[in-house]
Amino acid sequence: MLLAGALVIMKKLIGAAVFGQSGGPTSVINSSAAGVFTAALDSDCITKVYGAAHGIKGILDEQLYDIGQEDRKELLYLKNTPSSALGSVRYKLADADKDDTDYKRLLEVFKKFDIRYFFYNGGNDSMDTCNKISKFMQNSGYECRVMGVPKTIDNDLWGTDHCPGFGSAAKYIATSLMEVYCDARVYDKGCIIVIEIMGRNAGWLTGASVLASVKGAGPDLIYLPELPFDREKFIEDVRRISNANNGNCMIAVSEGVKYPDGKYVADSGVKDKFGHAQLGGVAGALGAILREAIPEYRVRTIELSLLQRCGAHCGSGRDVEEAFEAGKTAVEMATSGKTDFCVGFERVMKDGEYTCGMKLIPLSEIANTEKKVPREWINEEGNFVNEKFVEYALPLIQGEPNYAREDGLPRFARLKKVIAKAD
Amino acid sequence: MLLAGALVIMKKLIGAAVFGQSGGPTSVINSSAAGVFTAALDSDCITKVYGAAHGIKGILDEQLYDIGQEDRKELLYLKNTPSSALGSVRYKLADADKDDTDYKRLLEVFKKFDIRYFFYNGGNDSMDTCNKISKFMQNSGYECRVMGVPKTIDNDLWGTDHCPGFGSAAKYIATSLMEVYCDARVYDKGCIIVIEIMGRNAGWLTGASVLASVKGAGPDLIYLPELPFDREKFIEDVRRISNANNGNCMIAVSEGVKYPDGKYVADSGVKDKFGHAQLGGVAGALGAILREAIPEYRVRTIELSLLQRCGAHCGSGRDVEEAFEAGKTAVEMATSGKTDFCVGFERVMKDGEYTCGMKLIPLSEIANTEKKVPREWINEEGNFVNEKFVEYALPLIQGEPNYAREDGLPRFARLKKVIAKAD
Repeated sequence: MLLAGALVIMKKLIGAAVFGQSGGPTSVINSSAAGVFTAALDSDCITKVYGAAHGIKGILDEQLYDIGQEDRKELLYLKNTPSSALGSVRYKLADADKDDTDYKRLLEVFKKFDIRYFFYNGGNDSMDTCNKISKFMQNSGYECRVMGVPKTIDNDLWGTDHCPGFGSAAKYIATSLMEVYCDARVYDKGCIIVIEIMGRNAGWLTGASVLASVKGAGPDLIYLPELPFDREKFIEDVRRISNANNGNCMIAVSEGVKYPDGKYVADSGVKDKFGHAQLGGVAGALGAILREAIPEYRVRTIELSLLQRCGAHCGSGRDVEEAFEAGKTAVEMATSGKTDFCVGFERVMKDGEYTCGMKLIPLSEIANTEKKVPREWINEEGNFVNEKFVEYALPLIQGEPNYAREDGLPRFARLKKVIAKAD
Repeated sequence: MLLAGALVIMKKLIGAAVFGQSGGPTSVINSSAAGVFTAALDSDCITKVYGAAHGIKGILDEQLYDIGQEDRKELLYLKNTPSSALGSVRYKLADADKDDTDYKRLLEVFKKFDIRYFFYNGGNDSMDTCNKISKFMQNSGYECRVMGVPKTIDNDLWGTDHCPGFGSAAKYIATSLMEVYCDARVYDKGCIIVIEIMGRNAGWLTGASVLASVKGAGPDLIYLPELPFDREKFIEDVRRISNANNGNCMIAVSEGVKYPDGKYVADSGVKDKFGHAQLGGVAGALGAILREAIPEYRVRTIELSLLQRCGAHCGSGRDVEEAFEAGKTAVEMATSGKTDFCVGFERVMKDGEYTCGMKLIPLSEIANTEKKVPREWINEEGNFVNEKFVEYALPLIQGEPNYAREDGLPRFARLKKVIAKAD
């Protein structure tokens, strides 16, 4: 029962909502879409729900899908459909005071479709986009609530405990490394395995490989881009471990590791027959270094490549649900009056039990700030991560997602994608 | 009730059994081990059950694990533990009439441990090994029953409908390709993806990528090693498909494809800074060809590498069970008097329902013969496989394995591996 004195009359903002997906895809970005769509379709403030084809570009081009025409059951299949079902984009808006062409066009489309809610799913850059759009709309006197939904396997967003997408990629990586570990050790003569993991500036995903190590089947050495890469110490470490383990050594390395002079390790100097430099990836570069330095052992290199960010079949059930909640929360907060925030996660540990609360982070704060792995979570030698990392990452990979299959193969969402027309 | 006239008195052969794993590992080779161990421990003919460390080498070196000391529950975890839990080996026995040193040593160890049953899990070469050992034991007057258990992701064993390990690898490949397909198509400008799949001489695994295509999310072009690779036609095909699909084209290719002159496509002519040839894999080579020939589109290459043969988390439940049955059948047949056979699979289709029967193939017939993908299962142009392949492969990837997890990560079998001493 509400007391009269506590009653707050919220001004209801009635209008359409648009949702867009931006940046590199993850396993659970579509789960956030499902959360946004479900809550928006159920909201009594939102008159129409649109999905923008290829993020902001879809709005500029009036390529908006009418989500109301989709089957509700089909929308739930989005929870376990990897990648960006609406199409993504990498598009950076100019500053409005330098060139406001795009902003004017956005305002035009917003007005045409009576869009009063703008939800955008992405990383740092996308939150910057949200922020700029919101400012322009305010300055133009057009009422519109803007809410960011976080996503990035890189886990580098500031202000949130973790990012949707990270837990699933981390689980895929740890699981795959445990399996590769078994595979690589079957012969009586060992094998050095170098595994390249995504993360150009932040080492969260590569660090997650430690979860395989704590189960006794993971890397012996872990190299993050947070620290400069010491070539000689690397060779020495691999030699020592291989010698002690019958030629076996497993190495997990971030794609973005650099030498102390700032040069990428991946830039190995390999040239093709026309003399062009081949940027072959860091695993290939380290493999070449080891084959030359330690020729007595077999060396094998593996790039997890796109597999690690779309491997929904090995996703984290918790990540899928949190991503869904993030989308749902964005809608609920916006319809209740909030604007200019990005949804974030707050970890609560109680009696060793993990729960995840939702919070709101001002767009102006989250945009364009990268969160790195803290130095104190990396060992002193700089070639492994410690128990603080394990404690952080382990709760995020729990639970099996409800991954639908048909004929033994993934059953992804089948959207009609009916292009909307303004009323 | 047995009629007296039909009663056959089978001579019981009482003694120990040894099981070894040989060749490249698969997701389900340990499931066959579980089948062998379970049946052998339950048999009233078998006095002791040994697991050979690293196959035949473990017997030569008397490195035999006493399986009777393992926890029975732990042995069942083997069903979903990828790779070779006992350790594998690539060791080719000499012909006994040229050099019988190894054979004499084997006989010595067999006698010392009273081994009367020899079970060996492997591909063509391993069946050859079984055959040679059996002949030598017979010629030496030592009674011993020898039974092969098939395995190979390559699916190239003669005389069996399919091989344990193939279904799981095929499922992993088709699932991963469907996910990569989604990931690669998110931007408004497309991407050419080249995916390298195992199979040096037989294209079964690469052909299995068609299962993703029939679900609308798989390769546009499939190249098997069964046919010579036509570079110019390949470029033309990729250009045509990319042009018609906004720059998108997905290509699945066997690691072993060769040009008409017999040279591997993987031998691309790329050299490192010391001028050494880099055998970078076929995906890298085709990627380089496409970047040069069709520079207007982005090209990305992915090697499924070891992941595809140890990805038990995405295995076929049917494959896991069939592999277990193959091991069990080998023991049952041997204790009932059979010798010199390899267990094989017979497919029975009744009213569209698949069932798999066990059969016995003479070792002398299965050894050293490779089964290739029939020409009539490949399209006329040589750049795809047809519905006959789909019909063959689809039943083999059905069913979800009971993949145990602990803390969200794989729970593999933990064997004690107690080294046995002869009584």
